[in-house]
Amino acid sequence: MTHEPDQLYQAVQATRPLLRHITAAVERGSLRAGVTVGQRAILEGLSLTPGATAPQLGAALQMKRQYVSRILQEVQRAGLIERRANPEHARSHRYWLTPKGEAIITAIRADEMEKLALFSEAFSPAELAAYHKVQLALNGFFANLAKEV
Amino acid sequence: MTHEPDQLYQAVQATRPLLRHITAAVERGSLRAGVTVGQRAILEGLSLTPGATAPQLGAALQMKRQYVSRILQEVQRAGLIERRANPEHARSHRYWLTPKGEAIITAIRADEMEKLALFSEAFSPAELAAYHKVQLALNGFFANLAKEV
Repeated sequence: MTHEPDQLYQAVQATRPLLRHITAAVERGSLRAGVTVGQRAILEGLSLTPGATAPQLGAALQMKRQYVSRILQEVQRAGLIERRANPEHARSHRYWLTPKGEAIITAIRADEMEKLALFSEAFSPAELAAYHKVQLALNGFFANLAKEV
Repeated sequence: MTHEPDQLYQAVQATRPLLRHITAAVERGSLRAGVTVGQRAILEGLSLTPGATAPQLGAALQMKRQYVSRILQEVQRAGLIERRANPEHARSHRYWLTPKGEAIITAIRADEMEKLALFSEAFSPAELAAYHKVQLALNGFFANLAKEV
């Protein structure tokens, strides 16, 4: 057994605590801006795909239909999004950020990116590129392993 | 905004699907060896700390007490571990792998490490070292952010 797999195993094992810390940190930042972490996700989704329907948001964010519906109601009541009838389907709606919703998600994302930029300064461009490359490759690798018989 | 934070943001966002794929892949490998993913975790825990108590295993694996108790009973019934009275505390026990349990977790871990070693071959030692370095640094970074007021 060489050194590399042990090191890689340790890094892979760090994925679970990392996700817990990311979720807690994103939640902390969202709450400072006055929204929950679920509301932040919906606002980000609508900022990436303006005019999305609820099922489209659910699919993009991998969230359950009822959870998406509940959060859409919350952020609509708070004046952060608005809905319009979907001309293609009766009884369905498309959703857009209001200027207030746009301002909130822009501020949250700017804060997150500023923090990541500060973090990045401790690493070389080659190290960051390697992290990105290995992380995405691991994603595909484990997705394939999970499908293997 | 420079290029690096965007790239890093994308890699960080891959953490959630990655954990899902890792869990599914580890489960697939465990089931092939005849144990559940929870049983695999307990066997690995006892292989790293032979003679551990149930509370020690729960703390090391971040599992709830009742879940640990249930799995310990399962693997004991399957003849994969054995327990002995804890001389330090009446009513508490210490747990050890049996030769059969040892063989199973050794085979599972060897298979996992072999797969990771194959994966590693596509990357340079510098890339793998960078992945390890950035992954552990992100863990500390987000843990601190989560605590920030």
